[in-house]
Amino acid sequence: MPYPYNKMTQEDFDAIRRMTDPGRVWVGDAIATEYFHDEMPNYGTYQPELYVEVLNKEEISAIMAYAYERNIPVVCRGAGTGLAGGASCKFGGIMLSVMRMNKIFPVDHKNQTITVQPGALLLDVQAAAKEEGLFYPPDPGEKTASIGGNVITNAGGMKAVRYGLTRDFVRCIEAVLPDGSIVNFSSNVVKNTTGYDIKDLVIGSEGTLCILTEVTLKLLPAPNKSCTMVIPFHSLEECADMVPVILELPFVPTAIEFLERELIDMVEKNLKKPLPVSEGEAVLIVMYDASTQNELDTAVEMLCEKALEHGAIDVAIADTPERADSVWSVRGGILEAMKAESVAQEECDVVVPRAHIAEYVRIAKGIGAKYGICVEPCGHCGDGNIHTEMLRPAGMSDEEWESGTHACLKELYETAKRFGGQLSGEHGIGNGRLEYLKDFIDPRLYRLYQAVKLAFDDKLILNPGKMIEFE
Amino acid sequence: MPYPYNKMTQEDFDAIRRMTDPGRVWVGDAIATEYFHDEMPNYGTYQPELYVEVLNKEEISAIMAYAYERNIPVVCRGAGTGLAGGASCKFGGIMLSVMRMNKIFPVDHKNQTITVQPGALLLDVQAAAKEEGLFYPPDPGEKTASIGGNVITNAGGMKAVRYGLTRDFVRCIEAVLPDGSIVNFSSNVVKNTTGYDIKDLVIGSEGTLCILTEVTLKLLPAPNKSCTMVIPFHSLEECADMVPVILELPFVPTAIEFLERELIDMVEKNLKKPLPVSEGEAVLIVMYDASTQNELDTAVEMLCEKALEHGAIDVAIADTPERADSVWSVRGGILEAMKAESVAQEECDVVVPRAHIAEYVRIAKGIGAKYGICVEPCGHCGDGNIHTEMLRPAGMSDEEWESGTHACLKELYETAKRFGGQLSGEHGIGNGRLEYLKDFIDPRLYRLYQAVKLAFDDKLILNPGKMIEFE
Repeated sequence: MPYPYNKMTQEDFDAIRRMTDPGRVWVGDAIATEYFHDEMPNYGTYQPELYVEVLNKEEISAIMAYAYERNIPVVCRGAGTGLAGGASCKFGGIMLSVMRMNKIFPVDHKNQTITVQPGALLLDVQAAAKEEGLFYPPDPGEKTASIGGNVITNAGGMKAVRYGLTRDFVRCIEAVLPDGSIVNFSSNVVKNTTGYDIKDLVIGSEGTLCILTEVTLKLLPAPNKSCTMVIPFHSLEECADMVPVILELPFVPTAIEFLERELIDMVEKNLKKPLPVSEGEAVLIVMYDASTQNELDTAVEMLCEKALEHGAIDVAIADTPERADSVWSVRGGILEAMKAESVAQEECDVVVPRAHIAEYVRIAKGIGAKYGICVEPCGHCGDGNIHTEMLRPAGMSDEEWESGTHACLKELYETAKRFGGQLSGEHGIGNGRLEYLKDFIDPRLYRLYQAVKLAFDDKLILNPGKMIEFE
Repeated sequence: MPYPYNKMTQEDFDAIRRMTDPGRVWVGDAIATEYFHDEMPNYGTYQPELYVEVLNKEEISAIMAYAYERNIPVVCRGAGTGLAGGASCKFGGIMLSVMRMNKIFPVDHKNQTITVQPGALLLDVQAAAKEEGLFYPPDPGEKTASIGGNVITNAGGMKAVRYGLTRDFVRCIEAVLPDGSIVNFSSNVVKNTTGYDIKDLVIGSEGTLCILTEVTLKLLPAPNKSCTMVIPFHSLEECADMVPVILELPFVPTAIEFLERELIDMVEKNLKKPLPVSEGEAVLIVMYDASTQNELDTAVEMLCEKALEHGAIDVAIADTPERADSVWSVRGGILEAMKAESVAQEECDVVVPRAHIAEYVRIAKGIGAKYGICVEPCGHCGDGNIHTEMLRPAGMSDEEWESGTHACLKELYETAKRFGGQLSGEHGIGNGRLEYLKDFIDPRLYRLYQAVKLAFDDKLILNPGKMIEFE
C-alpha cells in the first residue's frame, strides 16, 4: 500500500468514544469475532482495532474526518451477509456498523419512492413497500441483508430478467466521503443529466469509495398475478436454446432459472423436496408476473406452445402460490443440499453472454472432473449468471481441495473470459476474487480503476485492499 | 485551464493526415462552419483548427495518442444535434467526427442485442431492430442524432416512463481513452459486478472522459399493441395530481406528457393541428404499449375510470395509429408553433420530483411574467422533466431579451433546486449550462467531479471547458 496506516492508540479510541457513545464502541478482544469476516470466512478473517455502531450521518462524518486526518482505515459494515469477503478489516482500523441506522421513512406515493437508512433489512424494505400496495422488485436470495449492502454491491437475484438489478431502483444516494464530507448523488428525480453519474459509479463499489447514509428507492405497482412453470428437456443444450426463444415472446419473464438432473436429485434426496416433473436431464423454471389473469394466461399459453415446439418433454404449471413456493423451494434448497452432500464447498459467480450458457456448463463440469471435484453449475439462465458450485468429496485432503479449487477457479474464469464473460455477476470482488480480477481486466482499465479510487479516496482509507490493489 | 494547450502547427496537420487520409482532413477556413457549433449556436461557436473524419478505432487511438503527447484538445462529434453546446471546439484543436463509423452489425438474437458504431443514426438503429422483430425503446425527439451522441449524453425522450433512458439499454462500450488506449467497459452480459461501473460513469459524460468506438445495445421484444389517450382537466393541478394515480395502476404507461391550453391553442393556430378535445385548461397525453389487445383494453378501461374519478372532463381515445399520430404531432409541433409565435426562444430542461410539477409550472410562468417573457413549460409529466420554453416577444430589445432570459433561468433553476430538482433532465450541461452547474452542485461534489475527470484525462484534452471547469 502506498500509505502506511497508523495503528490506533488509546487516544484514538477515546476520540471515537467522544464522537459517539462509549456504550457503542468496542476495542480489541471485546469485539465479537463475527465481525472479523462476512459469510465467507475463507475469504479472510481480520480483527478490527475498533468496532463502532453509529446512529447518524453526523457521527459517520466525524469518524471519517478523524480517520482521514489520522490515516486510519475504515470499513463500513451492514448485515455482513456478503459472499466476497468484502466487509472485513484487512488492514485493521475501524469497523463502522450502520445496522442501528435502520429507519424506513413513509412511502412517498407521489414520487413512488421509499427512503431508507442503510441498515434497514431488505425484507423490511420489501414489506414496507408491500404494505402500501407497492413493490420493491430486487430479490437477491439473502433477505436479511442490509439495503445499504444491497446498494453498495449492486445485488442481483432471480427477478433481474424482468426488473433489473438493485442499481435500477436507486433514485438517489446520500453518502459520506473519505474526508468526512456529506454529499448527495442525484435527488428524487427520474432523469438527471446534471454532471457526472457518480451515483451509478458508487453503486457496486463495495464500500471502497464512500459510506452510504441514506438511499431513496424507486417502487413499482405490485403485480397482481404470478405463475411458475417447470419445463424439462432431454439435454442441457435444448434447455439453454429455449432461453432466447422465451425472451423473444412478447411477455418479459420475471425469472428463468435452470437446474440439471444431478442437482435436482441431490435436493430431492437430501431435503425431500421434489420437482413436479421427474423426467429430463435439465429443467427450466420460468416465472411470469402479470397485471391481469388474462395477460398471465396468454403468456403461459404462449410459452407452453413454444416450449413443446422446441423439444420440451412437458410443461408443469405451478399456478397456485403453494405450488409455486414448492418449486422455488427446490431452487432455494440447492446450497443446503450441497452441504448435506459434501464436506466443503467453494463457488464462483461468473456471468457469460446468454448465447454461451450451455457450452460454459459442459466445460465447467469437465474442469471439475479433471481435479476430482464435483462441479455443479446452476442459476440464472435468463441473465447468464451461473453460480458454479464446487463440492469437496469425502476423503480429499485439505491440500488437494485447496489446490484443486484454485486450479478449477483459474480454468473456470479463463473459460468465462473466453466467452466474453465476467468474473462476477452479482457477488462482487471483495477480498475473495481480488487475485483473479487482474486476469479479467485490461491493465490500462485496472489503472483507470485505481485512478477512480484515488479520486474519491486519496489516502486509501476506505475498505482498503478490497476490489482493487495498489502496489 | 491548468494546461496551456499547444496551437496546432503544419507539422501536426501533416501528422494527422498521415494517420488517416488527406481526403478526410480539413484545416483552417476549409472547415465548414456547421462544425463550429451544435443545434444551439448561442451556446458557443468555435472554429476547430483541424477537422477529421475517422474510419475506425485505430485512427482514433493514433490521433488521441498524438494529441495527448502534443497537448492538443480533441472534441468528438456525432450528428451535431445536441442542445447544450457540447460538440464544439471551445479551445480550438481537433474536431474528430465519427459519422463515417456508422456500421450496424447484425442483431444478435441469442443475446437480444445489437452492436453499432457511434456514427449510426438513432433512426437506423431503431429500424434495424424492428426489421428483426425487436425493439430499441429509447426515443428522444431527434431521430437523426447519432447513437454515440445518444449514449454519451444519456438521451431521454418520451418513453422513459416505461422503458427508461439510453443508459438502461447500453450493455457494453468500447472506447478510446485520452492517451489513445482502447478499452472495453463491461461485455455482452446482463449482470456485472466485476470492478467499478465505469460504463455508467461514461454514459452521460458528454465526451469529456473518452471517445466511444462501439456500443452494444439491449433490445426488447416489440410491443404488439399501443393506444394513446388525451385527457383534459379543468386545472393544471388536477392534471398533475393525476400522474401518481396513473403510476399506481397495475399497467406501466409508456409516456405521460402534459400541455396547457395556451400551448395547445398556439399549435392549433400556427400549425392547424388540433387535439381531439377542445375543453380543459390542461391536458394529459398518456400512451400504453401492450403485448395483447386484451391487456391494452384493460389498461385503457382502468385509466378512463380512474381519470373520470379524479376530475377529468373527458377521455379521448386515439385507438388507431392515424389518430395516435395526429395527437403526437401536436406534442411534436410545440417548438415549431413557438417559433411561429415568437422572434426567438430560449429553453431550460429542469427535472423536478414528480410531486412538484404543478407548483413548478405555476411559479415558472410567474417568473416569466416578471421579465415580460412568455414562459411555456411542457413536457414529460411522467418523469418530472419539464421543458421550460421562453418566448421573445416582438419589440423586446436584444439587451432586454438577453438579461431577461438570464434572470429567468437563474430563478427557474433556483426554483427547481428548491424542490429537490436538477439543472438538466436530458439535454445536459455542455457549454450552455456550465455557469449554472455550480449553483446546483455542492462545492465538495464539484471537486469530486474534477477529480473524476482528471482520473480519465489528466491533461484535460478531451472536450475541455465543457460540463465542468478548472480554474
